[in-house]
Amino acid sequence: MEEQPALERLSLNQITTEQWNLREAVVGCVRAEIPWISLWRHKIQEIGLAESKRIIRDSGLKVSSVCRGGMFPAATVKERQERLDDNKRAVEEAAELGTDTLVLVCGPAPDRDITTARKWVEEGIEKLVPFAKSHGVKLGIEPLHPMYAADRSVITTLGQANKMAEKYDPSEVGVVIDVFHVWWDPELYQQIQRAQGRIVGFHVSDWIVPVPDMFKGRGMMGDGVIEIRSIRQAVEAAGYTGPIEVEIINQSIWDRPGDDVLQEIKTSYANHV
Amino acid sequence: MEEQPALERLSLNQITTEQWNLREAVVGCVRAEIPWISLWRHKIQEIGLAESKRIIRDSGLKVSSVCRGGMFPAATVKERQERLDDNKRAVEEAAELGTDTLVLVCGPAPDRDITTARKWVEEGIEKLVPFAKSHGVKLGIEPLHPMYAADRSVITTLGQANKMAEKYDPSEVGVVIDVFHVWWDPELYQQIQRAQGRIVGFHVSDWIVPVPDMFKGRGMMGDGVIEIRSIRQAVEAAGYTGPIEVEIINQSIWDRPGDDVLQEIKTSYANHV
Repeated sequence: MEEQPALERLSLNQITTEQWNLREAVVGCVRAEIPWISLWRHKIQEIGLAESKRIIRDSGLKVSSVCRGGMFPAATVKERQERLDDNKRAVEEAAELGTDTLVLVCGPAPDRDITTARKWVEEGIEKLVPFAKSHGVKLGIEPLHPMYAADRSVITTLGQANKMAEKYDPSEVGVVIDVFHVWWDPELYQQIQRAQGRIVGFHVSDWIVPVPDMFKGRGMMGDGVIEIRSIRQAVEAAGYTGPIEVEIINQSIWDRPGDDVLQEIKTSYANHV
Repeated sequence: MEEQPALERLSLNQITTEQWNLREAVVGCVRAEIPWISLWRHKIQEIGLAESKRIIRDSGLKVSSVCRGGMFPAATVKERQERLDDNKRAVEEAAELGTDTLVLVCGPAPDRDITTARKWVEEGIEKLVPFAKSHGVKLGIEPLHPMYAADRSVITTLGQANKMAEKYDPSEVGVVIDVFHVWWDPELYQQIQRAQGRIVGFHVSDWIVPVPDMFKGRGMMGDGVIEIRSIRQAVEAAGYTGPIEVEIINQSIWDRPGDDVLQEIKTSYANHV
């Protein structure tokens, strides 16, 4: 497993090219011969689901996932029901767009009570599973970096995500491993092994030192300190050989021409993933 | 354990008043009737160990800890030996200043190899323990927030710190629990329980949303989302009833008059710790 990852596995996570709309991103991938794309819902909404579907179908690109469902915790029953309804729409969009994976960013607590928020996440997933299953869509719990625990997700470690996912059949709920979120974890390799057969997505970027911005500060693969190749090999050893999404949230990348970014991605992917 | 913490346990971690030198901080604590202080080495060095010792002795303040030893990983044997020598000086300073606790911020990797860096931390502690023991000083491993894994410490969870400390007698190596670093951890309460009899320090501040700065962005207790009181009670249930250090690294607090900060600390401590 020392070799470079196959180009056939490369996927552009659309947030990496936030400067592009959905059509531009699709055309860019086709031009750069990147075979996969992961679509974000705010980009789908800009042009509508039907048009998005048409663009994808005509392009020949494969959709690795839809980002994102989740955001389950909310202070009232009514709000939590609204979040669930929105998750059902996300499932429908994933199914329509031809992917079997909906990435879950599970959401922060509405207050200081992180324990209850975690219960609401579990409840939300439990309620969503039958609906997702009936649409042929798997839910991928993505643990986020603990620095996002207060504003993006109370699910902060792969161990926690594994434990939640294990209550379900792997065809229903799996985990999404993003190197940026998990690289610091002393249990990382052990938890990747534990996720065997349940990994439904693998995301790459890098941790730059110092981090230029807590949200928009991810780096191109190779520009930071993450042992991306070791992690990719461990993820493969745990049975995941699906698409590898490049997901870089970084303002300076958004300020560049998308085509240049895609070329750099291909080089960095070959050299560092 | 519903009650407020005793004022007799309040300690000013000196980094909270970075605007003050050691003498000013000591005088400020005496004036505010804060009975403990935790000293930082760069402040000790400004005036020398002998003078620091004299000021402390004359003030009647008790020293809860010296911050900080650690920073063990380095690329060469020579550098690692220099780090160890510096840690020995930190132990001597702690002993001279009348505290039995040296806080360890264990250090980042010099490269991408976080696994080897962790081994160097373990080796460093192993080499330091006999020296510290002969000086009556306990080493307190402080897990840092994972967002500091690349530039401050490869020890990122209380579980990891517990595991490392458990190789030693509790009189030799313990753990320091800082709410800012550990609040997000799904295993937090379980790991606090595991640390029973081995907790040698407890630090408080808060996690503001959004975090104003990755390093200088900690909040006053009550201004953020951390369930400080619950954590304090769990730490007490695990047997720790020693000093509670207020450690807030925040530029806007450093820009204010220190006496005002100390008054606010006393109120926030009573209401939120």
